[in-house]
Amino acid sequence: MKIQLSLDRVTIPEALQICHDAADAVDIIEVGTSMIKDFGNASIQAIRRAYPNKTILADSKTIDEGAYEFCSAYGAGADIVTVMGAASITTIAACREVANEQHKDYMIDLLEVSAEKMQLLRQFEDAIFCLHLPADKAGSGLEQMIQDNLQLLQGVSRLAVAGGISLDTIGLIAHSGFEIAVIGGAITKAGDRKLAAEQFRLATKG
Amino acid sequence: MKIQLSLDRVTIPEALQICHDAADAVDIIEVGTSMIKDFGNASIQAIRRAYPNKTILADSKTIDEGAYEFCSAYGAGADIVTVMGAASITTIAACREVANEQHKDYMIDLLEVSAEKMQLLRQFEDAIFCLHLPADKAGSGLEQMIQDNLQLLQGVSRLAVAGGISLDTIGLIAHSGFEIAVIGGAITKAGDRKLAAEQFRLATKG
Repeated sequence: MKIQLSLDRVTIPEALQICHDAADAVDIIEVGTSMIKDFGNASIQAIRRAYPNKTILADSKTIDEGAYEFCSAYGAGADIVTVMGAASITTIAACREVANEQHKDYMIDLLEVSAEKMQLLRQFEDAIFCLHLPADKAGSGLEQMIQDNLQLLQGVSRLAVAGGISLDTIGLIAHSGFEIAVIGGAITKAGDRKLAAEQFRLATKG
Repeated sequence: MKIQLSLDRVTIPEALQICHDAADAVDIIEVGTSMIKDFGNASIQAIRRAYPNKTILADSKTIDEGAYEFCSAYGAGADIVTVMGAASITTIAACREVANEQHKDYMIDLLEVSAEKMQLLRQFEDAIFCLHLPADKAGSGLEQMIQDNLQLLQGVSRLAVAGGISLDTIGLIAHSGFEIAVIGGAITKAGDRKLAAEQFRLATKG
């Protein structure tokens, strides 16, 4: 399982410091929506310049103007860009078209997506689908929630999961068939970020 | 009826030139989602610096992290910030709380909002609701479509409308009870932007 480190609510210098501490132990660096809206493509470009060979995800959360926003984020250096599952099928299809043309990946964020809409989203077979777990469910109840969600997503080949994942829950996540686990505060707010990232890395190998 | 000039897919200098030509004839300057994602809050700050007394809307299209994104956009100089109707009620409530604390307006974008969700959104009585008309419906069929949508939105006090509005359709819009008409390319792509903006202004007074 890959670890995606999400950078949110920080300045570009703070983001670069977090990456300096933790990037070696993670597979994907996520430029969070808050960084994109605060600093624009400059936030993606800064991480790309510092990490030319790292996989970078731009959490654009596109919900309209799919082609424009995806071209812009890939152009700034992103390898993966996100579109909301709540967007229209036309918008998501426009995002897929740009992703396919540029031979890049795209992620569909399942926030606020109904079971009915999920059925329509199954046509995007090459997408990475990102499931959000309520952060407060960490621990008890999490296993059942993951199983319930995985049933809804049965047959989806590429799955990511986000939402308050900690060292207490990463083991369960790692054994549930996800391709990517998105980790934020558990690494970025840790006293020793390098150690925290390495502990997550170790847990995914367990 | 107020005219909102939307600035999209342009650089900050291009946006300032468009405003130089057309701002006098419009009521609200919209910093479009594409500008926010390309250039961040700097795009809002640049328009605010140039137009300290103009009403500025930041089309943040927030769908998560409502409090953070609204504080950030208002802090950059926006008077009105947008949240997606497709966001969770919790997220929209967080946006409203920040708007109310700062005595600012907020707009709920009805893109991809079902009739069922619209009923839930009625609790946000102080919001401006923004209806999107398919651009290709300009002319024939538009009047019927407006009536159908207004029925769905019956009782909503503050309404905006966007989507390919032209000089051919602004008259009908102006007589349909909307508070704000969002105009983009019909002004920004006009040969004479000042004249185009003044023609829209005149049409809303007709």
